[in-house]
Amino acid sequence: MIVRQLSDIRRTDRLVKSKGWDSARLLLKGDGMGFSFHITTMYAGEELRMHYQNHLEAVFVLDGIGTIEDLGTGEVHELSPGVMYALNNNDRHIVRPESDILTACVFNPPVTGREVHDENGAYPAAVDAPALKVAVNS
Amino acid sequence: MIVRQLSDIRRTDRLVKSKGWDSARLLLKGDGMGFSFHITTMYAGEELRMHYQNHLEAVFVLDGIGTIEDLGTGEVHELSPGVMYALNNNDRHIVRPESDILTACVFNPPVTGREVHDENGAYPAAVDAPALKVAVNS
Repeated sequence: MIVRQLSDIRRTDRLVKSKGWDSARLLLKGDGMGFSFHITTMYAGEELRMHYQNHLEAVFVLDGIGTIEDLGTGEVHELSPGVMYALNNNDRHIVRPESDILTACVFNPPVTGREVHDENGAYPAAVDAPALKVAVNS
Repeated sequence: MIVRQLSDIRRTDRLVKSKGWDSARLLLKGDGMGFSFHITTMYAGEELRMHYQNHLEAVFVLDGIGTIEDLGTGEVHELSPGVMYALNNNDRHIVRPESDILTACVFNPPVTGREVHDENGAYPAAVDAPALKVAVNS
């Protein structure tokens, strides 16, 4: 059994910080679960254009609001706590957070943890993120 | 792209209610993601003895407190918002919620949605769950 605390993970190199978002990788490929599990924040005011060609991803919104545009269909969906989107067709998409959006994300196949490091050429410094209120009405 | 809202899912037969817990299945095997994704509540005061022999499961606590006992090692871990546990060895375990514990859960291989139905011999009635405050300090 693996037991981890988000606030601990955020103090390690499992927290990846990039332009417009950060992601705390609670489970990576090396953990052997067959998926990876991340708590990811997308920052207010950003326009995040994404296309995971080699991964399927599910994203569950814990807090915050914004929109996601499906570039395949042109549809725009509202994001708010309790909304899940799943990129089951490696969908090209743009997320536009109005506020910071806190999410739980699952990747299949699992992320190794090297992807963003390789792109940026370095490990980012560990940072302390501000506390975020989570507001899923179940 | 699949987009779903938890409150909608809770009004369908994708909400499964059993002794001591309920689970809203936002993604099932049929969705083709290679994992299933559930928002599960474990009820205060219950003692939930579990052993998934055929699935690996990760659980991220969104709200509530309690403990998990690893029956393989005898270790007891505290559960609170921000804690994740992963049953990477099909670990036998007992969860003892002190309050209702709201979680995000991932299963590999994905749950089909029939497991609890088969056990109980029927689909449960759809119910409206009370709103729960979520309090992950990220």
